Amino acid sequence: MKIEKAIDEFAKISKILLEKEKKEPVLKYHSVEDYEKLINLSLSNKGCTENEFFKLLKEVSLLTPRTNSKSFFNQLFAGRTGPSLSADLLATLLNTTMHTYKVAGIQVLVEKEITNAFLEKVGYENGEGIMNPGGSLSNLVSMIIARNEKDGRILKEGYGGRKFIVYTSIESHYSVIKNAGMLGLGRNNVRKIQSDYIGRMDATHLEAEIKKDLLEGNVPFYINATAGTTVLGAYDEFNEISRISKKYALWMHIDGALGGSALLSRKHKHLLEGSELSDSFTWNAHKMMNVPVCASFLLVKEKGLLRKHFSEKADYLFQGETEDLDLGSISMQCGRRVDAFKVWAAWKYYGLVGIERRIDHLFELAEYAASCVEQDPMFELFRSPESVNVCFTIAGATPEKVCEYLHKKGLIMVGYSTSEGTTFIRMACINADIEKTDIDHFFKQIKVAVKALRLNKAVLV
Amino acid sequence: MKIEKAIDEFAKISKILLEKEKKEPVLKYHSVEDYEKLINLSLSNKGCTENEFFKLLKEVSLLTPRTNSKSFFNQLFAGRTGPSLSADLLATLLNTTMHTYKVAGIQVLVEKEITNAFLEKVGYENGEGIMNPGGSLSNLVSMIIARNEKDGRILKEGYGGRKFIVYTSIESHYSVIKNAGMLGLGRNNVRKIQSDYIGRMDATHLEAEIKKDLLEGNVPFYINATAGTTVLGAYDEFNEISRISKKYALWMHIDGALGGSALLSRKHKHLLEGSELSDSFTWNAHKMMNVPVCASFLLVKEKGLLRKHFSEKADYLFQGETEDLDLGSISMQCGRRVDAFKVWAAWKYYGLVGIERRIDHLFELAEYAASCVEQDPMFELFRSPESVNVCFTIAGATPEKVCEYLHKKGLIMVGYSTSEGTTFIRMACINADIEKTDIDHFFKQIKVAVKALRLNKAVLV
Repeated sequence: MKIEKAIDEFAKISKILLEKEKKEPVLKYHSVEDYEKLINLSLSNKGCTENEFFKLLKEVSLLTPRTNSKSFFNQLFAGRTGPSLSADLLATLLNTTMHTYKVAGIQVLVEKEITNAFLEKVGYENGEGIMNPGGSLSNLVSMIIARNEKDGRILKEGYGGRKFIVYTSIESHYSVIKNAGMLGLGRNNVRKIQSDYIGRMDATHLEAEIKKDLLEGNVPFYINATAGTTVLGAYDEFNEISRISKKYALWMHIDGALGGSALLSRKHKHLLEGSELSDSFTWNAHKMMNVPVCASFLLVKEKGLLRKHFSEKADYLFQGETEDLDLGSISMQCGRRVDAFKVWAAWKYYGLVGIERRIDHLFELAEYAASCVEQDPMFELFRSPESVNVCFTIAGATPEKVCEYLHKKGLIMVGYSTSEGTTFIRMACINADIEKTDIDHFFKQIKVAVKALRLNKAVLV
Repeated sequence: MKIEKAIDEFAKISKILLEKEKKEPVLKYHSVEDYEKLINLSLSNKGCTENEFFKLLKEVSLLTPRTNSKSFFNQLFAGRTGPSLSADLLATLLNTTMHTYKVAGIQVLVEKEITNAFLEKVGYENGEGIMNPGGSLSNLVSMIIARNEKDGRILKEGYGGRKFIVYTSIESHYSVIKNAGMLGLGRNNVRKIQSDYIGRMDATHLEAEIKKDLLEGNVPFYINATAGTTVLGAYDEFNEISRISKKYALWMHIDGALGGSALLSRKHKHLLEGSELSDSFTWNAHKMMNVPVCASFLLVKEKGLLRKHFSEKADYLFQGETEDLDLGSISMQCGRRVDAFKVWAAWKYYGLVGIERRIDHLFELAEYAASCVEQDPMFELFRSPESVNVCFTIAGATPEKVCEYLHKKGLIMVGYSTSEGTTFIRMACINADIEKTDIDHFFKQIKVAVKALRLNKAVLV
């Protein structure tokens, strides 16, 4: 098959897909059995003709849930703007990897350019950064550095017998606990710190837990603060957490996967006051910046630590005088996609001012959605949104059932969550192409679901 | 910017890029200063027009090294076939992630289909698998499972004071040592086992080292065997290593990132005899299968272990009855690209028979290249190639200088390596679109380089 043909057919299928996305923004729910009836996914010895192949590719694409449509409020990513999309498509075609300057060339400079722009926004004056495949793994990288910096013997000799303790709020992302399990720190050695009413880590509880661990002979080493919690979108108080981290010589990481992008907005960057006091920072461009997945950055305050803890000799790979440009030697990965290109492209096209406008729009959408909730006696806000997540309950209906109904009927995609014993809808205003009318439509569909569920008593509360 | 416009412009730039790739298969070397003179990568407050933007995108793309051309022999990835490319471009446009069935839908079934096909080829009868962003991280996942299975307390309580030991051959991929450092096992707790003449791990030395560690009270837990070593392309003897792993109750992993795909060839699968005796297996489709980067699979013999060691509660994410289909709960990652689609597409279009033909062709190319080396008094094989890597020395010229010259002049991209004190050219026959005439061209260019270097005595040996 000619590469040119492959690209032409992709372009054709794209147009059909985009039309469908407009007409039927959410794909109706399909069970595994539904899919099995509709399409033959099985792999065989025999291949197929180009016509058969592209027909199949089109069908699978049309049967994939439409996460980019204006009816998707389900997760903390959505949308894909034109400039980023073009760059990401080109990245696919270019098919090079970022581990050496020899094979990545100018793309290394592209990654450095965007990394430096983020470093400046966080407030790290002489920092460094690296892209990772997702926020979970950016958090993992920071935990590795923190642990190795706490005890210089670990990289080469491994852990001794003492317990290394991680502190994170009960509202933080699940990757913090998962990563502690992966790294052999032990999931039980993660202290879950209470949060306050709006979801911020309780500094008093944090300090008390650190003291307790010190008394027990454990090794407190890492505080994970959050900029934009997964459920409520809350921002921890970084100045206060920094004070504690410095007092007890702990590494302070900020998981800004969701909320870090607020640093690009003059209006909202105050939420991140004190970010420059942290030691590392996770920033996902594929969330508030609407860049296609994945585009996650780990930013580190002190230059040299990535090389110190991740570099490993490989003379067949790292050759010549370009050490500083061979990104594989400061990365947890070896080969990896050219993911910086799409982030850089967005900034280049929109300019910082354009990106700021998009991010401010997300906050406005969330504010508008919150006002819709407040004005309707059927709904109640769980908390006033601190950023782009709007969490609300529905009188006389269980959120689980409402979400399931909307999903199965293909009306809207949204999820639910639980905090302090209350289960609520969590609506993510994350796609900046969405307008207020789409928010209106969202609430209308919620009402459709509630009404339908009421008619069928079996699925009521 | 309209999404349709973004796709049209991508298609236009693609055609220019493909033309250039044919006419100038290797990009001339550019230093950082060269790039800085040629292009303005800097990010500013102000955005740009669509015309300016696409001009810039085209320029960056044309200035990126051409890893897909017929002059690229530098690394263990290359090429991108039409069917995989179409699917990967669609994956970019679809922009969903694989963590839940709710947002990924049919793509979950696509990943399961191709994973099952690989499991069957490895010989795991009731196994499971997951995709990871690269072979290094697939190896990491296997090391985590092995460690946790060795000591059931680690996941929750963390390591105690004993040393956990990893065994791998001196010819294995650098990620094994790097991963041990990342996981807190300690790089010094990786025993580097001798290899034999053709690059296979020495089983006698392996067993001796395990015995020594047991005597010292350490905890041997993991053997990394390699199917297709990075430099020589050699295959370890899996039956023999399995015997030792069983005798001492160690986890046996096969890093088949490069060479696992030989299982798809009836002619070459004998190289992997005994693969079914291992406990886990890394398989990169972006190497011998010419799927765009990255497409790495970790296959595990025993179903349930991925969930056991990677699942972590997140009620805002994993909702409802689709637990077995929510791939995030068995993955080291949370959100991730739809990378299975491009692998599945290749198999669907070519059929197993077509893929087999492509893989056999790679082995034939390597054999042909080796014969070119043998017939020319100027060259000498370091070893007869066991798979697709051809390693050879050049009389009177240092490989480093030859590679550098070829790279700087933009003639050919190839790398060098060292084994047992000898430095040689490592040529990777990894792109199945390459023909014997391209191999002839390769050696011609090597001679051009040697001649040029001889004329300039300063850079000679």
